[in-house]
Amino acid sequence: AKWKIWSEKDVKRTMKKRGSNSHKGTFGTGLLVAGTDEMPGSAMLAGLGAMKIGIGKLVIATTPYAASIIATRLPEATYLHDGLNKLAVGTFPDGIRAMAIGPGLTDEKLIDQVLENVWEKEIPLVIDAGALGKREFAPRKAPIIITPHPGEFSRLTGLSVKEIEANRLEISSQFALQKNVIVVLKGANTVIAFPNGTGFINRTGNAALAKGGSGDTLTGMILGLICSESDITSAIANAVYLHGLCADELVKEQNERSIVAGNITNVLGRVMNRLITD
Amino acid sequence: AKWKIWSEKDVKRTMKKRGSNSHKGTFGTGLLVAGTDEMPGSAMLAGLGAMKIGIGKLVIATTPYAASIIATRLPEATYLHDGLNKLAVGTFPDGIRAMAIGPGLTDEKLIDQVLENVWEKEIPLVIDAGALGKREFAPRKAPIIITPHPGEFSRLTGLSVKEIEANRLEISSQFALQKNVIVVLKGANTVIAFPNGTGFINRTGNAALAKGGSGDTLTGMILGLICSESDITSAIANAVYLHGLCADELVKEQNERSIVAGNITNVLGRVMNRLITD
Amino acid sequence: AKWKIWSEKDVKRTMKKRGSNSHKGTFGTGLLVAGTDEMPGSAMLAGLGAMKIGIGKLVIATTPYAASIIATRLPEATYLHDGLNKLAVGTFPDGIRAMAIGPGLTDEKLIDQVLENVWEKEIPLVIDAGALGKREFAPRKAPIIITPHPGEFSRLTGLSVKEIEANRLEISSQFALQKNVIVVLKGANTVIAFPNGTGFINRTGNAALAKGGSGDTLTGMILGLICSESDITSAIANAVYLHGLCADELVKEQNERSIVAGNITNVLGRVMNRLITD
Amino acid sequence: AKWKIWSEKDVKRTMKKRGSNSHKGTFGTGLLVAGTDEMPGSAMLAGLGAMKIGIGKLVIATTPYAASIIATRLPEATYLHDGLNKLAVGTFPDGIRAMAIGPGLTDEKLIDQVLENVWEKEIPLVIDAGALGKREFAPRKAPIIITPHPGEFSRLTGLSVKEIEANRLEISSQFALQKNVIVVLKGANTVIAFPNGTGFINRTGNAALAKGGSGDTLTGMILGLICSESDITSAIANAVYLHGLCADELVKEQNERSIVAGNITNVLGRVMNRLITD
Ligand SMILES: Nc1ncnc2c1ncn2[C@@H]1O[C@H](COP(=O)(O)O)[C@@H](O)[C@H]1O
Ligand SMILES: Nc1ncnc2c1ncn2[C@@H]1O[C@H](COP(=O)(O)O)[C@@H](O)[C@H]1O
Ligand SMILES: Nc1ncnc2c1ncn2[C@@H]1O[C@H](COP(=O)(O)O)[C@@H](O)[C@H]1O
Ligand SMILES: Nc1ncnc2c1ncn2[C@@H]1O[C@H](COP(=O)(O)O)[C@@H](O)[C@H]1O
Ligand SMILES: [Mg+2]
Ligand SMILES: [Mg+2]
Ligand SMILES: [Mg+2]
Ligand SMILES: [Mg+2]
Repeated sequence: AKWKIWSEKDVKRTMKKRGSNSHKGTFGTGLLVAGTDEMPGSAMLAGLGAMKIGIGKLVIATTPYAASIIATRLPEATYLHDGLNKLAVGTFPDGIRAMAIGPGLTDEKLIDQVLENVWEKEIPLVIDAGALGKREFAPRKAPIIITPHPGEFSRLTGLSVKEIEANRLEISSQFALQKNVIVVLKGANTVIAFPNGTGFINRTGNAALAKGGSGDTLTGMILGLICSESDITSAIANAVYLHGLCADELVKEQNERSIVAGNITNVLGRVMNRLITD
Repeated sequence: AKWKIWSEKDVKRTMKKRGSNSHKGTFGTGLLVAGTDEMPGSAMLAGLGAMKIGIGKLVIATTPYAASIIATRLPEATYLHDGLNKLAVGTFPDGIRAMAIGPGLTDEKLIDQVLENVWEKEIPLVIDAGALGKREFAPRKAPIIITPHPGEFSRLTGLSVKEIEANRLEISSQFALQKNVIVVLKGANTVIAFPNGTGFINRTGNAALAKGGSGDTLTGMILGLICSESDITSAIANAVYLHGLCADELVKEQNERSIVAGNITNVLGRVMNRLITD
Repeated sequence: AKWKIWSEKDVKRTMKKRGSNSHKGTFGTGLLVAGTDEMPGSAMLAGLGAMKIGIGKLVIATTPYAASIIATRLPEATYLHDGLNKLAVGTFPDGIRAMAIGPGLTDEKLIDQVLENVWEKEIPLVIDAGALGKREFAPRKAPIIITPHPGEFSRLTGLSVKEIEANRLEISSQFALQKNVIVVLKGANTVIAFPNGTGFINRTGNAALAKGGSGDTLTGMILGLICSESDITSAIANAVYLHGLCADELVKEQNERSIVAGNITNVLGRVMNRLITD
Repeated sequence: AKWKIWSEKDVKRTMKKRGSNSHKGTFGTGLLVAGTDEMPGSAMLAGLGAMKIGIGKLVIATTPYAASIIATRLPEATYLHDGLNKLAVGTFPDGIRAMAIGPGLTDEKLIDQVLENVWEKEIPLVIDAGALGKREFAPRKAPIIITPHPGEFSRLTGLSVKEIEANRLEISSQFALQKNVIVVLKGANTVIAFPNGTGFINRTGNAALAKGGSGDTLTGMILGLICSESDITSAIANAVYLHGLCADELVKEQNERSIVAGNITNVLGRVMNRLITD
């Protein structure tokens, strides 16, 4: 079938116990290009998403101001100061397995410059938020994953939010096919559409996520699983599933109104422990 | 009756489960103008109040120094650096549903300039602390909410604290009527007086709140509920009720002497989960 | 009798439930002059000590660099930037009930200048750490409390640590009498000696406190109780007692080696709740 | 026998309850030379490792930028700003019992200069990460401890990671003998080889540690125990054992993927309390 609900069974099937001899290299190094002085938190939330879901190493390309805010809560990451500018002029850290760009960013010219410089690299690219302005997706070997909320997808497609919300599956799948990108259309029942015409629907999550920052955490979780798991399709689906499952776990103890994106990664380890058991 | 004790029944009646299809836009964007380099914490406490009570998005207009302190604990907010100055010269972010101004501010000239620029905007205004100097309230369409403690109300009314405390209901109601503002007169048994002559009395809370910062948290909670709930009257009453209820929850585990304002929002989700059940 | 062991009974006798109509003014404003760029943490620990034991308001006079580190964990305080310099040239905030000076400070000339400027003020002075260099204590109305560890007391008295430790009661009492100061000689079984020849011995606490920072927390707790309780003698004794009791509480869950000064104020509320019951 | 598995019995035998009269001097002062602006977190993790395992006092030589990030979570330490440069030109704090250098450092010239300046000092030296470039170890009185992961040990020995991993015991022991250094070869079943030909194998720990930052925490734990315990051999073995035991404790509640190095020191006190009982 074209569409499938990604369920707990699928998570258990695709996420196994780690090899006892693994080391941080095993789980890959991710590059997160995110955060500006007035939106530093988005890079922290994405960074927490990646590190709390199992990435081996994380480099956060951001401003020195934002990095000083992030590092207090994410001492396990390393930082590329003025990263957006450095990447825009062509510098690129070694050994990066996947890259995410966009949370907390606003300078479209610089973003386009960075994307141009990395386009030929054979690493998956997660494109979110500030990097989801109207753009063409030239063909490239490694996969592109876009993570728009309906507003951003409206900008990308030119369709109204109303039209999109009335036909989420069809429109995502069409875009994925035409542009050869993986589309993660966020919102209740997030849709994941692949360029081969198949897709998943996610049933986890609730209105506790209806607050600034939730999407940034998801972007980091997707980057983290792409780096640390072998199959990119299940990596993306599991990140979306676990992101929502954390929200379902949190509302047991906190009212949906009170949950903030930073709480998500606090329960991620507990939630994964129940699912990944063998 | 003119006066009514706002009770648990009222909270349950007016705060319902969220729609499953809601998104961060549903719960509004608040603008918090607060915090200076020597009083950065007040903006953090108000920001936590707004985000932990359910606001959709929060923009904090403050100094870059204060924002770097706040963002470590509030990565879910975004920041308008040198916000007070920018607002004073007329810049104003899009899509703001309500604004709060005053916690941690001291520059009365700049504050007056900002209030003048926003007076015609049809958004509720919460005026607290540093913005509660002696002022006139010109008529405007959207509601004004002032949140003075007795000392600030004495400054506003010219009456002594002793006179005010001896006649809290009458004096608040009169001020509300004359100035056409909603008065939240803080202190044990906080009084909420509306311009239509009605009012609520709050019975929750205790002396654990008798410490610097408690009022800043309340201001954020009021901003948060005004943005995320439909009815402004119950939004204010519920914010005051929940603020006190958190203090009552906290003294079960910590002595009243040891509670600090930052603890309030840590138990807000637990407390709301008991009340908002259907 | 000259000497008395300060016990749980004494704490219960002297620390009562707060009046329901109290407000932050009731519990006083403390001024904490502490912290430099290379020793910012001492001011944070003392600040946490004062605010978590019940002070009404706290002003921390420190460097802008240190204040930015402190305020993230202590948003409820306000800050006087370059406070040591400002106080040294005579500026002094209004409404201060008591002052503590010394944790994390090194510039003896500036400290002496500040002490000279405040000497005539009728507010208790807690003198610790960097302010405990060799000095004379000119007569003044309000009490002086010094909080040396044996090393600092050796500097003050000219006696060796060995001599001091062999005769803690006698030497502290003599110093208190001669200099008309309250001496808190720290170490296992802390001694509190008053200028009237009486004194207390504290039996709470353990070797978990044998780590940098413990004394800074105590200084803040003493400042906090002097501001928020009526009787200075029991305020000092209770602060020392509760400081040690927190260490006894912590070792139930954490090995003595793993406790750090910042943990002390995390259990202070729980410990006080057991003692202050009526 | 040459090799021995370091077990719980050994930990209990060598780690005893503290003397009730101990004070912070008893447990030594450590100097941690670590952290740069783009890798500030490694110094925080090492600092937490040292202070949460029982060091008396800790001085962290790092950049002012990194120190402001670290001090928020480690107010109990003091800081030597621009420490690497100051130590490179010969300044050295008094009363240091042991030093660790390398986490988060990159400037090999400066590191070599510092090592040269301290080589004659009779204090144990823990050399890790950035300080583990190819180097000779001139003879010196006090012990040298190197803590390479296989990649760093390959750089030091010129052997491939594959060769090292195929013969971890033999190669570590040979290096220890030839260079007269204590080798802690990290990875599953960490090997500790001493210059006298003996060695320990550690069986605690799991793949939760396969993430950036875990090694930095270990380096701090080794520095902490060398300062606070009498015997350096058991100090190193116990640090490695406890580091892994914390990871085994953490996976009970959190999936191995979700654990970050900062979590290790959160359970260290609980874990030690079970072992150190008399
Ligand atoms: N009502 C809802 N139910 C389930 N998930 C939601 C809801 N509202 C928002 N989300 C999720 O929260 C995140 C919002 O992303 P963003 O708008 O980029 O912050 C996405 O993962 C959404 O799927
Ligand atoms: N004794 C008390 N009982 C109940 N609420 C109090 C008490 N003291 C202070 N508060 C509350 O704490 C906050 C103080 O506001 P502010 O003075 O602006 O920090 C207000 O919400 C007061 O109603
Ligand atoms: N072995 C110990 N038993 C009880 N209290 C201690 C012990 N070691 C240190 N302390 C306390 O820890 C604090 C150390 O102060 P300072 O040396 O200024 O950091 C004082 O309150 C001491 O009384
Ligand atoms: N699979 C594993 N099992 C046990 N310990 C591990 C494993 N992977 C990494 N470690 C430990 O984690 C730390 C990694 O050090 P570093 O590579 O310097 O961050 C060392 O203490 C390793 O022994
Ligand atoms: Mg987003
Ligand atoms: Mg106030
Ligand atoms: Mg001290
Ligand atoms: Mg390492």
